[in-house]
Amino acid sequence: MMKIGVLTSGGDSPGMNAAVRAVVRFGIARGMKVYGIYRGYEGLIDGELEELDRRAVGDILQRGGTMLKTARSERFMTEAGRRKAVTTIETFGLDAIVVIGGNGSFAGALELSRLGVNVMCIPGTIDNDLGYTESTIGFDTAVNTVLDAITRIRDTSSSHERTTVVEVMGRHCGDIALYAGIAGGAEAVLLPEVDRDVNSVCRKIIEGCNQGKQHSIIIKAEGYPMDSQELVKEISERTGRSVRLVVLSYLQRGGSPTLQDRMLATRCGDKAIELLDAGLTNKAIGLVDGKVLGFNLKEALAETQEFDRHLYECVDVLSR
Amino acid sequence: MMKIGVLTSGGDSPGMNAAVRAVVRFGIARGMKVYGIYRGYEGLIDGELEELDRRAVGDILQRGGTMLKTARSERFMTEAGRRKAVTTIETFGLDAIVVIGGNGSFAGALELSRLGVNVMCIPGTIDNDLGYTESTIGFDTAVNTVLDAITRIRDTSSSHERTTVVEVMGRHCGDIALYAGIAGGAEAVLLPEVDRDVNSVCRKIIEGCNQGKQHSIIIKAEGYPMDSQELVKEISERTGRSVRLVVLSYLQRGGSPTLQDRMLATRCGDKAIELLDAGLTNKAIGLVDGKVLGFNLKEALAETQEFDRHLYECVDVLSR
Amino acid sequence: MMKIGVLTSGGDSPGMNAAVRAVVRFGIARGMKVYGIYRGYEGLIDGELEELDRRAVGDILQRGGTMLKTARSERFMTEAGRRKAVTTIETFGLDAIVVIGGNGSFAGALELSRLGVNVMCIPGTIDNDLGYTESTIGFDTAVNTVLDAITRIRDTSSSHERTTVVEVMGRHCGDIALYAGIAGGAEAVLLPEVDRDVNSVCRKIIEGCNQGKQHSIIIKAEGYPMDSQELVKEISERTGRSVRLVVLSYLQRGGSPTLQDRMLATRCGDKAIELLDAGLTNKAIGLVDGKVLGFNLKEALAETQEFDRHLYECVDVLSR
Amino acid sequence: MMKIGVLTSGGDSPGMNAAVRAVVRFGIARGMKVYGIYRGYEGLIDGELEELDRRAVGDILQRGGTMLKTARSERFMTEAGRRKAVTTIETFGLDAIVVIGGNGSFAGALELSRLGVNVMCIPGTIDNDLGYTESTIGFDTAVNTVLDAITRIRDTSSSHERTTVVEVMGRHCGDIALYAGIAGGAEAVLLPEVDRDVNSVCRKIIEGCNQGKQHSIIIKAEGYPMDSQELVKEISERTGRSVRLVVLSYLQRGGSPTLQDRMLATRCGDKAIELLDAGLTNKAIGLVDGKVLGFNLKEALAETQEFDRHLYECVDVLSR
Repeated sequence: MMKIGVLTSGGDSPGMNAAVRAVVRFGIARGMKVYGIYRGYEGLIDGELEELDRRAVGDILQRGGTMLKTARSERFMTEAGRRKAVTTIETFGLDAIVVIGGNGSFAGALELSRLGVNVMCIPGTIDNDLGYTESTIGFDTAVNTVLDAITRIRDTSSSHERTTVVEVMGRHCGDIALYAGIAGGAEAVLLPEVDRDVNSVCRKIIEGCNQGKQHSIIIKAEGYPMDSQELVKEISERTGRSVRLVVLSYLQRGGSPTLQDRMLATRCGDKAIELLDAGLTNKAIGLVDGKVLGFNLKEALAETQEFDRHLYECVDVLSR
Repeated sequence: MMKIGVLTSGGDSPGMNAAVRAVVRFGIARGMKVYGIYRGYEGLIDGELEELDRRAVGDILQRGGTMLKTARSERFMTEAGRRKAVTTIETFGLDAIVVIGGNGSFAGALELSRLGVNVMCIPGTIDNDLGYTESTIGFDTAVNTVLDAITRIRDTSSSHERTTVVEVMGRHCGDIALYAGIAGGAEAVLLPEVDRDVNSVCRKIIEGCNQGKQHSIIIKAEGYPMDSQELVKEISERTGRSVRLVVLSYLQRGGSPTLQDRMLATRCGDKAIELLDAGLTNKAIGLVDGKVLGFNLKEALAETQEFDRHLYECVDVLSR
Repeated sequence: MMKIGVLTSGGDSPGMNAAVRAVVRFGIARGMKVYGIYRGYEGLIDGELEELDRRAVGDILQRGGTMLKTARSERFMTEAGRRKAVTTIETFGLDAIVVIGGNGSFAGALELSRLGVNVMCIPGTIDNDLGYTESTIGFDTAVNTVLDAITRIRDTSSSHERTTVVEVMGRHCGDIALYAGIAGGAEAVLLPEVDRDVNSVCRKIIEGCNQGKQHSIIIKAEGYPMDSQELVKEISERTGRSVRLVVLSYLQRGGSPTLQDRMLATRCGDKAIELLDAGLTNKAIGLVDGKVLGFNLKEALAETQEFDRHLYECVDVLSR
Repeated sequence: MMKIGVLTSGGDSPGMNAAVRAVVRFGIARGMKVYGIYRGYEGLIDGELEELDRRAVGDILQRGGTMLKTARSERFMTEAGRRKAVTTIETFGLDAIVVIGGNGSFAGALELSRLGVNVMCIPGTIDNDLGYTESTIGFDTAVNTVLDAITRIRDTSSSHERTTVVEVMGRHCGDIALYAGIAGGAEAVLLPEVDRDVNSVCRKIIEGCNQGKQHSIIIKAEGYPMDSQELVKEISERTGRSVRLVVLSYLQRGGSPTLQDRMLATRCGDKAIELLDAGLTNKAIGLVDGKVLGFNLKEALAETQEFDRHLYECVDVLSR
């Protein structure tokens, strides 16, 4: 009987619970024993794990966050920490570890695989910053949360005839800003990927005013290289308009996962178990051309997220 | 200068407004004149259309329903009605018509194309019943609405330790039921595509009870060949449990469109205009392998929606 | 040390969990031992109870339904059943029972008090049908749920230029329909309290059409003495319009409780414990003139819910 | 025939639209002519007003913000500005002005009344800082928005076992923080009304940890005299925990108004028109003991908001 462990690591994302549930239930359905590892790699180092039966993952499908808790483990960054983790894996006799997380968590898994551990990675992060997959678990929920916030902000922004800058997550990847910009009808988006100067944003706002637009919304990713407060000040000074800042921050991580995130999580869990059952390991599960497949982990990690310039240009065309 | 018309037809779906906005704004950006046609083919017959500028489609991106109104036109089913529609198109000098709707609306467009009208079709229906495309505008919102409802129903179903049957839309295509079943954690789904007997559902419920499950949710598509009231009665008699029925009905058509539906609508509008601008017509825009492309309308209509049997089987595995 | 039990009974309502939490935590804060009784009077008869500590009611404040489960107990309707319940109370040495529920549950508590049991009643029902209190726990959430549904229905109703009849809960008390009618902008409400003929509703719809209204919404309480399907048929025949029916049913019972319901639940729990601690019993806690107070249970049950005719007339004035 | 004007002023609040609609429709029903004044006192000075018919306020009941726009007018602070406003009122022959807003807007109305203008004030502000009324239009929606945000934050806060500080609006009145604290299950609230030292909050967090609580939420009103970033730093240093800050900011002003806010807005509009029709003026409409009544404006403005110390203490008892 195959024994596997499952953990969530790094920043939490909505749908991680759905992925844990899928791993546990599909695993048990194929005759595996599944252990939940708490607090990500921290728990792996400390031996915080317990067997999960089908009931243990009941009523979590629709919940945000992760029942397994998550953490960023500094000890795991060290050789000693990883050796300790391998010892836990040996002690419990685990044949493989399923890691649900983002970039850093995948890199950790790759390190483990170099120490002879079988790993299987599932993309759980709101940032959509993994190049090998078209979407990550949590991204759809996060952007929908941003869209809800924009709807609320629009009410007050329009009543006061203001400009509002909305800061969203995304240090290296501007996808949350980009998608929220298109789908939220923003006047402009500011991303890490594009070197856009504030002046062009101000021109856009002023042109909008001249055409009778009563308010405008600018979406700025965290990773755009200018402080948000400063951005607000500069726009205000150049346009002469009242400008406000809203920083969505951790709101974007929470909430009940959407259909897309629950489906992606379920499909990734299904595929992870199927591959493990077939004796395959060291894969990153991902969505390519609408299909959920397993990719070589090392190669997957090496792929950089492609920036969709056409979509970026659409923001301008649509809000002109 | 190219002149085009845009209409929404058949049952409304969330995201139709986003598609109308995209057609109008991308069209204008490419130098076209865009006319809005009201009440679908009815308005085309009656000449209810007016030019739309960029502002006319402001503040609709996030709204459910369709600002162009929609209808099912019986007159358009007749040769005389369609001839009248062609006359309107000639009178206004329209070079092409963009039709946003489902199966029946596409068939109408095909008829128009046979009379020499250039058409371009965008899939707007919550049913996801168009075989040539992986998703239709409105489907994602509709299933998310069903998931919200299931969360609410679960509260009371679980407090009373009951079974609840949730009837969702889908006369010929069970996708709403299937996706809501997977993502909502239903015990069983009943679809038009699978001949499943009620007995197996009852067995599932009883097994769940024996394992300590306090409640169960059965999702039934409209098109499953058994009356919902009767189904409730039969389950209640066979299991001895308290069973309730909730018919979600028109709730599923409304609501602010989700990210997915706004993106799909925007991309379809973009592609429709791009193709028209390139002189291509009589296409159905659709999502295949994660990409939005144009397909031959007649062939697209002929494709039947493939049923995802693996997903169907997952419902059972996940809720066992 | 005082020992008390707490149970939820009858139809569940959002906020019951918040009330249970308040009873447990305020009780413990005053040095009481608090037992949770499962499945309402059924559990009291069967001795299904256990002590609850502060942690046992953690993370339930925001959840719909009731962690204590609820039921309608037929056995408790009999003298024998109630005697059995009293035996349980004696066995566990409970000094008082806090009953959270509606009309029927209060009547049950009154019967218990006649057998010498100290009771304290908290109004938990979505129906708002308890005459002695201005609001009941769950009513605010239920009407807000109806308002959300109306917003969704309006999207599609307006796109199709239809009339929609929305059936809401309320067998004897039309408050859900009345409040949803005012706050949802309905064209008319049909209630158990007012003998209104369908003709006047049809006149209203036709007048609206003549003034250019594209859609109309009629809210009908369950208790209005005409079958909903029949009502739809009659309106359709008399007005010649397309009319649809949506039955909200159990959706109204679920969902995370609103601010108002959480506050009312918390205040009722606080007051119940305060009174018990002061040696007072056989009270119904209620909201009068904006204050939460204890009333004589028997007298409270005897008060009939006053119908707010002025509000009813406002529906007409506002939608004329 | 009586002619009245209606304006919204100061910060917008959800439900202002519902109040405007009520004033217009109840006014017309009593045979009045109603003018909408745009941008608050700014529009009154500039003569930006137009007659509103019943249809002009259609489909706004459920929308956040205010269709009349709002502003804070500096010119109106001057004698000259107010004289100009009076001239507009005379030019249009308005018999009275209905002002929907908060503290500052009421003070402006009082000034107008001193210049002989008949005014009627409706409390529209999310802050709940008007002492003469138990609630203000927008407060219920704002706190419900905060509760939704807390639910989302709790997901991620609990997955990471963190403490989160949530900054909410309220410069002088801590009611948003207080109610969100009770109803959101916060560990502590920090308000302008209570001089609470950070140390006691840290002790609370540490005690919670010791009892096994995985996360904690601290709600801080804007008006608590310590910078939020500094507060986070201090809590983090003293407790050794990971602490995060979320500033809800303008999110709190938007969104579709709740039942309570729509009802209060409708009732206030009804009462305002009733009093004007009866020849009464210079009143502030408010909710006292659950009833909507008119109060002398000057006296109403003089009343200070009473702080509910018992409720404040309940936060501690409930989260201990």
